[in-house]
Amino acid sequence: MNVPTATVSRLIVYLRVLDSLASAGKSRTSSEYLGNEAQVSPFQVRKDLAYFGRFGTRGIGYDVAELGQRIRTILGLGRSWNTCIVGLGRLGQALVDYPGFGPQKEFHLVALFDTDSAKIGKCFGGLAVRHNWELPQAVAELNIQLGMIAVPASSAQEVATALVQAGIRGILNFAPAVIEVPLHVFVEKTDVSAALERLTFYLSAAQADRRPAP
Amino acid sequence: MNVPTATVSRLIVYLRVLDSLASAGKSRTSSEYLGNEAQVSPFQVRKDLAYFGRFGTRGIGYDVAELGQRIRTILGLGRSWNTCIVGLGRLGQALVDYPGFGPQKEFHLVALFDTDSAKIGKCFGGLAVRHNWELPQAVAELNIQLGMIAVPASSAQEVATALVQAGIRGILNFAPAVIEVPLHVFVEKTDVSAALERLTFYLSAAQADRRPAP
Repeated sequence: MNVPTATVSRLIVYLRVLDSLASAGKSRTSSEYLGNEAQVSPFQVRKDLAYFGRFGTRGIGYDVAELGQRIRTILGLGRSWNTCIVGLGRLGQALVDYPGFGPQKEFHLVALFDTDSAKIGKCFGGLAVRHNWELPQAVAELNIQLGMIAVPASSAQEVATALVQAGIRGILNFAPAVIEVPLHVFVEKTDVSAALERLTFYLSAAQADRRPAP
Repeated sequence: MNVPTATVSRLIVYLRVLDSLASAGKSRTSSEYLGNEAQVSPFQVRKDLAYFGRFGTRGIGYDVAELGQRIRTILGLGRSWNTCIVGLGRLGQALVDYPGFGPQKEFHLVALFDTDSAKIGKCFGGLAVRHNWELPQAVAELNIQLGMIAVPASSAQEVATALVQAGIRGILNFAPAVIEVPLHVFVEKTDVSAALERLTFYLSAAQADRRPAP
């Protein structure tokens, strides 16, 4: 089954909306409400969910807790994921502080790696930095599934290859470089340039009435 | 004209491909090649470009330099954009080092803001940190068009409101918080949680043969 990446991104938005509804004590919602919050049509909401089975009751809507739990399972969030960071420059250190990491969260930060001898052994967020050459052993021993690359662009591919060889299949790449990985490995990138360029597109086009479409 | 956000994101990818073709000394390319590099069909490439006019010659393809220049103009990259960072914690400091900033680049970093008196006046990347309350004056005097929010989630909305009141219409939000802005303001967010959740979706779904579709 080919699920569009846009559908996956929207599931994440629906989950955020459901979580805030739950926090507000609401127990029921509708595709109209979810669509409105996610800036898509109610039809799109139903279409996105239909990839994964039947959801909700016609005329009644969705149970907030149940739909949230099902989306969480679809997104693989019903379990914990051990994560490492490679590169403890300013960006890597900022990532250590990322509030999504923690014992009560889905993502556990369990190891830090760098090649700079001045950093090896230093502690960030309670974890001592290891040398990159410890990657294979640490990934196996600590059961690490996700790797974040926060090294300069020039070493991003080398680090990606090392992560893949160590057995990691999910990489979040913060380096401003395209990395090549085998087909069984998934890469997400956070590309500051691309985000800025989307902004300038809309700012330049604003007069010409090109608004973002869902 | 409503241009899908996915089209805008793909234009940015096509531009990266064209830039590397140009660096490699190539002068011609095709929608097949661009599609292959961007992992979409040649039809999608032609459809994306068709939003903005006629491009290329049937049977001959595209001129690499000309297409690159036209996409750059569409994306608003034919001019420079003055940018500021609010929040000089680790993430903000990491952003100062971002290689996309520079006198030869489209994005010029011209001001830094924080509220921490220990940071005001300190220099990062040659710029002294100003207090947030200088925002309105600095935005006007330095002609700042883009703002990057690198503050904790709890102050993100307050900073966004201050940026908008100062006249900024393009915001790149790094704080893990949803910010509300008026309709004439564009927001891009880099959401580490969402990127991690897309990875875990694909890792969980990999056995069930759900590959990302373009």
